[in-house]
Formats: sequence, C-alpha cells, structure tokens
Amino acid sequence: MNDIAYYQDIFLKHLSENKIEGEPSTLYDPANYILQLGGKRMRPVLLLMAYHAFDEDLSQALDAAMAIEVFHNFTLAHDDIMDAAPLRRGQATLHEKYNLPVAILAGDVLLIKSYQLLLKNPGQADPLQILTIFNKAAIEICEGQQMDMDFESSEVVSEEAYLKMIAYKTAVLLGAAMEIGALMGGASAYDAGLMYQFALNVGLAFQVRDDFLDTFGDPERVGKMTGGDIIQNKKTLLMIRCLARANAEEKAEIFSNKGSNSEKISRVIRLYLKYEVDSGTQQVQEYYYNQAMQSLDQVNITEAHKTVLKQFARSLLERTH
Amino acid sequence: MNDIAYYQDIFLKHLSENKIEGEPSTLYDPANYILQLGGKRMRPVLLLMAYHAFDEDLSQALDAAMAIEVFHNFTLAHDDIMDAAPLRRGQATLHEKYNLPVAILAGDVLLIKSYQLLLKNPGQADPLQILTIFNKAAIEICEGQQMDMDFESSEVVSEEAYLKMIAYKTAVLLGAAMEIGALMGGASAYDAGLMYQFALNVGLAFQVRDDFLDTFGDPERVGKMTGGDIIQNKKTLLMIRCLARANAEEKAEIFSNKGSNSEKISRVIRLYLKYEVDSGTQQVQEYYYNQAMQSLDQVNITEAHKTVLKQFARSLLERTH
Repeated sequence: MNDIAYYQDIFLKHLSENKIEGEPSTLYDPANYILQLGGKRMRPVLLLMAYHAFDEDLSQALDAAMAIEVFHNFTLAHDDIMDAAPLRRGQATLHEKYNLPVAILAGDVLLIKSYQLLLKNPGQADPLQILTIFNKAAIEICEGQQMDMDFESSEVVSEEAYLKMIAYKTAVLLGAAMEIGALMGGASAYDAGLMYQFALNVGLAFQVRDDFLDTFGDPERVGKMTGGDIIQNKKTLLMIRCLARANAEEKAEIFSNKGSNSEKISRVIRLYLKYEVDSGTQQVQEYYYNQAMQSLDQVNITEAHKTVLKQFARSLLERTH
Repeated sequence: MNDIAYYQDIFLKHLSENKIEGEPSTLYDPANYILQLGGKRMRPVLLLMAYHAFDEDLSQALDAAMAIEVFHNFTLAHDDIMDAAPLRRGQATLHEKYNLPVAILAGDVLLIKSYQLLLKNPGQADPLQILTIFNKAAIEICEGQQMDMDFESSEVVSEEAYLKMIAYKTAVLLGAAMEIGALMGGASAYDAGLMYQFALNVGLAFQVRDDFLDTFGDPERVGKMTGGDIIQNKKTLLMIRCLARANAEEKAEIFSNKGSNSEKISRVIRLYLKYEVDSGTQQVQEYYYNQAMQSLDQVNITEAHKTVLKQFARSLLERTH
C-alpha cells in the first residue's frame, strides 16, 4: 500500500525539477524562493491521492498538483505581508528577504501561474469545471482572510462566523484540491463531491484542534509555548464559547492584561475549564472528523485508497505542532 | 456611425449596474471603490469595439469587458502600493483610504473575479483560448511592472529592454482586450491576431508619446508641469537615446542635481535637442502608429468599424494629459 510519504516524494521530485520559469529573475527568483521553503505539501498530496483513487497514471496529475501548491504559496506570500510576519519555516519571508513591492508582485505572478498550470493538463476532467471549483475556493480564501483580519478588531464574533472563517481560510482549498484531483482521475461529480466534503471536514477538524493545542497542548510535544492565542485575545472557538457563557465580571477578567502573561493564561484557562469549552471544542473536532469519515465511507474507491486517506486524516489530527 | 462615447456609455451603464458582489463588505467595498474611481475605460471599450466589428449583439461581450476592467483595477490597486502613490484620479488610493492589507487583498480578489467574469460568457470563442490569451497578458504585465521597478536602480537600460517593458506593462492588455473581443464576436484567429497587433502598437505609440509629452508637452495643454521624468532621472526613451550618444561629461551633467530643478530640466533638454532625441522619439511613435494602421488595413471588417478604431487611435495620440 502507498503511504503519504509516497505521494510527498512524487510531488517533491516534480517540484525540484519544475521551477516557475520566466524573466526578469528579480521577479521569478522570489517566486521560486517561497516555493522552496518546504512544508508538508499537504494540498498537492491531497490532489494526487484523490487522482490516484480513480486513475493509475499519477504523472497526469502533477501539473494540477503544482497549480494548487503555487496558488497556496501566493496566499502565503501575501498573508505574510498582511500579518507583518518576519519568518516562515524559520527563514525570512518574501517581503523581509526582498521588499514589499517584490513580495506583492511575486504573489501576483504565482496566482496567475497557478491558473496557467491548472489548464496545462486537465486529465479526464472538463477544464471549465475545474476552473469553476478553483475560482470558488480562491474567492472564499480571500474572504476568509478578510474575516480573520476583521475579527481582530471585533468585540464579539459568533461561532457561526468563526467556523465559516476557518472553512474559507483553510479548509476549502483542501476540499478543492481533492475534488479537482478526483475529477481529473475520472471520478463522477458525486464521488468528487464526497472527496471535497472529506477534505473540507478534515480541514475543519484540523483547525479546531490547532486552536485547542495552542492553549491545552503539551508545550514539549507541541514544540512551542502554549497560551499565545490567550495573550493576543484571539477569537478562537475556545474563546468564543467562553465569552458566550461568561458573566460581565469574567469577561473583564479575560480581556484584562493585569499581572504577568502566565497569570493571564491561568486565569483564562480556569474559565475555559469552568465552562467546559475544552471538552466542547474537542467534541466539535470529533464531529468534523466523523463527518469526514462518513463522506469517505460513501465514496466509490478501493479500501486500500480509503485506508491511505484515513491515515492522512489521522496524521493531521495527531500532529503536535 | 458609433463613436467611442457610444461604447463608453454602454460599458459605464453596465458597470454602474454590476458591482462586485460578496461578503464581507470590508473586502468588497474597497474592491468596488477603486472600480468606481473613473477613467476612460479604454480596455473594455477596446474589447467592445473589437467584438462589435464581428457581431452585432454587444450585450454578449459585457461580462468579458468587465473582466478586463476588473483585471486592470487589480493592477492599479497593487501598483499604487508599489509606487507608494497617495492619490489616483484625485482621490485616495486603496491603501491610503483603507490600509495595506485591505489594498493587497482587494487587489487579489479583483484578479480572481476577473477570471470568473471572463468565463461567464465566452460568446463564440473557445473559453480556453480566451484564458490562454488572458493568462499570457497577465503574466507579461507582472513582468513589465518588475522591469519598470528594476530600471529605477539600473544605470544603463537598453532601448530594447525599455520597449519590452512598456509593451508588457501597458500595451499587451490593450492587445489582449481586442483579441478576446474579436474572438468572442466570431473573428478568425487571423483577424483576432491583427486586432491584437493594432492595439499593441497603438499602446506602444501612446506610451512613447506619453514620455515625449512629459518633457516637450505644452504645460497648459498637458495640464501639469513638464520635466518630471528628467528630475526623477527616469529612463524614458528620450533619456535612453540621449545617454547612448552623450559623452562622459554630458552624462555627469544629466545625473547631476546642481542648481534648481528648472536649471536641470533646461540642461537636459539642451542635450536632447543636440542629439535630436526629440524628433527620433517622434519617429518611433509614428512607426508604431503606422504598424497599427497596417494591421487595421488588413483585418476583415467593415470600413465603418475601421473608422471608429482609427478615431480611437487618433484620440489617444492627440491627448494632451
């Protein structure tokens, strides 16, 4: 049976042999720099796994896998500017290594190149159908990023708005990657839709878990100090649920910055435990995980392919950093 | 006979009735703000004129005309950030009115929406052919913008590189607008290619004239002080040709900032006249204009449509501001 590393290796080989080509180098060197910064290559791996569940010849899916990864790197280049992030994967972000104009323009060219790559080889899919799925996800990702920025200055964020934000910002691209891969491999629209639902729900479970670990993770296993979201008053699912239950005095306590950071973290965690938002959040994660598994159960692919996809979902949710 | 104002009116009516829709408004209000800042709407007008030369039903071309204008506004939003421009058409640029993240993200969403709009109604054209033309122009526009930024810090810029830069940065989108419009109206690939060449060459003549007017225009008719490019040591065609002929002493004179701005302008103009780069540049403009007319002569459309297109070319080149 193939495992995740199998698909990662195929994609990494393709990536190393296929730079984004063009002139001037002052534009394309930055574009290739961010593409080479590493990462798990989760989105192209999902596309390849979905394709492979319907067609053997993975080589036909490599351009589209690259398109999804190039698109993802466009979002990283621009998000890093918006977040004023100096580092990505321990290396300088584009705007730090080069400058702001180059980071904007390299992001733009990555976005346009992702359309070119997506059209290069649509496999057995209707290219216009693929583009429609891709466009929808791309628009939603911009909307999710804007919602995330808006939430920073919002006093109240509803749970519904939060879940929409994480779906748009993160999960829809996982869904689109799998739906596109499945259609390219020859899947029916029904099966491709189930693949989208599988990846979307895995992405939602992943994001909810990510928030949970920021507060309740084991710092040694997570590999970073916990409590960062609390210090930043970030509207995570934990915080949103706690604020919905807390009384006025407790709310003031949550936003107060009196005492040390660790005192603030302890204070807020005490309220999280009082209102059981820790277990509540884990239930939400399990709900999405179960939704993902239900979609996977229904899809018409071999058990071997389902096993790899389950392995992928578990590995994402067992991650500790 | 229809004139340019006829096509402008049709497009402006469509634009006023078709905002970019979506949520959150914190993303779409900025996107619509820049779209409403005005301008001659040259690119959608070119698309409509090209379409109309082959098919009567202009309503079929409005989504694509909108796509081209929305794409153009993506470039304006991001270029304004890169140029740190506070104003566009006398009103605050996006990053000034809102902030940097919003200006980046509104630009991104305009770019993606332009793909959605382009696919909405391809008329009689193959949508994939249209996308290929659009992608090529979009990539070249990014490359042209990067070249333009690179030239600011380059000591020597070749005439060839300069002409490529203005072609990519400005003229190719005019060409793509007409080629796409023609194909949508049912033109042959040959005729659509001639339309591309017509608009490309008009664009080149326009840009060369724009540079010429910055130095030699009548300030009263141009509506702004002349000599700005000289003060900024900008590598225009005038400057590039002058530097290629000037001796070492004259080169030092060109880059020197001694004396007042108007003294510097007079000094450089004297050299421009000595080396006849003024008349040389006008010849280049005429060359491109004649190339445009040759393409137009060959294209298989009615004389009435050719007359409107000639009127458009002349109006662009007679403009004084």
